[in-house]
Amino acid sequence: MAVKKKAPAKKAVKKVATKQAPLFKKMALIGLGHIGSSIAWAAKKNGLVGEIVGTARTAATRATAKKLGFIDSAVGDPAKAVKGADLVVVCVPVGACKAVAQAIGPHLAPGAIVTDVGSVKQTVIKDMAPFLPKGVHFVPGHPLAGTENSGPTSGFAELFEGRWTILTPLKGGDAKATAKLRAFWEGIGSNVDVMDAAHHDRVLAITSHLPHLIAFTIVGTATELEKHLRGEVIKYAASGFRDFTRIAASDPVMWRDIFLNNKEAVLEMLGRLNEDLSAMQRAIRWNQGDKLQKKFAKTREIRRSIVKAGQA
Amino acid sequence: MAVKKKAPAKKAVKKVATKQAPLFKKMALIGLGHIGSSIAWAAKKNGLVGEIVGTARTAATRATAKKLGFIDSAVGDPAKAVKGADLVVVCVPVGACKAVAQAIGPHLAPGAIVTDVGSVKQTVIKDMAPFLPKGVHFVPGHPLAGTENSGPTSGFAELFEGRWTILTPLKGGDAKATAKLRAFWEGIGSNVDVMDAAHHDRVLAITSHLPHLIAFTIVGTATELEKHLRGEVIKYAASGFRDFTRIAASDPVMWRDIFLNNKEAVLEMLGRLNEDLSAMQRAIRWNQGDKLQKKFAKTREIRRSIVKAGQA
Repeated sequence: MAVKKKAPAKKAVKKVATKQAPLFKKMALIGLGHIGSSIAWAAKKNGLVGEIVGTARTAATRATAKKLGFIDSAVGDPAKAVKGADLVVVCVPVGACKAVAQAIGPHLAPGAIVTDVGSVKQTVIKDMAPFLPKGVHFVPGHPLAGTENSGPTSGFAELFEGRWTILTPLKGGDAKATAKLRAFWEGIGSNVDVMDAAHHDRVLAITSHLPHLIAFTIVGTATELEKHLRGEVIKYAASGFRDFTRIAASDPVMWRDIFLNNKEAVLEMLGRLNEDLSAMQRAIRWNQGDKLQKKFAKTREIRRSIVKAGQA
Repeated sequence: MAVKKKAPAKKAVKKVATKQAPLFKKMALIGLGHIGSSIAWAAKKNGLVGEIVGTARTAATRATAKKLGFIDSAVGDPAKAVKGADLVVVCVPVGACKAVAQAIGPHLAPGAIVTDVGSVKQTVIKDMAPFLPKGVHFVPGHPLAGTENSGPTSGFAELFEGRWTILTPLKGGDAKATAKLRAFWEGIGSNVDVMDAAHHDRVLAITSHLPHLIAFTIVGTATELEKHLRGEVIKYAASGFRDFTRIAASDPVMWRDIFLNNKEAVLEMLGRLNEDLSAMQRAIRWNQGDKLQKKFAKTREIRRSIVKAGQA
């Protein structure tokens, strides 16, 4: 996601840090990219976990994570990473969640909390839940934070401060586990909301997935222009295009998985957008200035609401 | 246009300021909004003009401009504003340029340079040129700068620093007038390019007009959602939607005029985007993950080019 950092929300941090024992004794991080490394830095900074063991597909990523110091130890096998961990955070593209659940399921400690950070929740639940044993608490999550950067070197402790994290606990799940995970996210400065997974997926389809799809598409359109125009698109990007390129610079694999896993909601929202785009096209073609102006005045109001909501 | 300010480009400023006589004795500003007020502040800061007389449609705007002090005097009638001015800058929505040219034409001083700041150049030339007398030099221009704010209180002297301004002189026009106007823009910190008006309109259609149209549309789509989703769109805007709302908060009248006046190029670019959007939709529907990933990896490269070009 293309999200800029806000000013640190120090209050939430203070409450948790230092004085008491850490919230979790051992956190296992599956995946050490942008979100994984940021969670590790944030958990360390706020004294929320006793120990962090990390795993990643490549030895290079594991070595980088160890060297940077946001994990205490690195292992190549996810099954080994989760041994004795009371918190397991899966930070891989949503398309890889199923394989992770299969790999770690038999090795999870009783009472452990397992969560993820994926931008789609229904398919992640469908993919992971069947492989997690009874006595383990699966509380899916999604921090609405991130930048267009990726990889283990791109994380930072303040990424989640003042942002929202959405938890989508399963029906009949353990309320205490949800509360503890909420305390973790609040401990690293995030606001937390709890909602139904299906609802989450619809909200994210319009606030995040569709904007990203459009940004990817329009940047693609521009790059397929005649050669003499293409260079100027980059030169004069500051006139509006630039904001789209920042969004469209987000991780390709992560976004491939999001679109394939939230297909229904994304296609529905795209359908609505297409109708509105056709109406806009028609208004331009037929010189309907009043119609355009009215539309634009309305969208300006929305911006004011967002500024008012402190999310600008 | 939604463009953020860059670090000041002090070098260009130094060259012009203080030592020599101002480049123009009297600048007349027709329109005292975001761009007009920024030009005035910048010209004053860099000692480029001896005197600034401003005009605006409403008495309230003129009073605000006087009070803020970015103009030396205010008059209600554009015809009076241009009397004796050796530089006339028309800073009104492109749809209002024709009426301005009609009003000021008979009152322009011989040898005066007349320019504008509109985001469309062909229709502005068609609308204004017939009303400007011989001996007056019409050099259309377009600074690729601005924020989502508007009005006389929103201007600031550094708006153009490090940005591009495009001049589209008429065939057979006076090269000295173009050079002098270039010196003015460079004097307020802008980079300057000269190109054909038709080419300008195509480049801007893809780098600026289409992104704005899409942003206006998607924000509109979101606001027409079922009520229970709408509130959450604002709450969770930070996940991608937010960047679109900033672009879609730009001045409604200005943008109405841009779309109506660059209709052909905008509709052409929109046609291309629609084709690409259909392809994207199909790839999602048919689970063509490889295709999506390849597309997204390509757009990421574009971002890197923009960062490299210093326009990020």
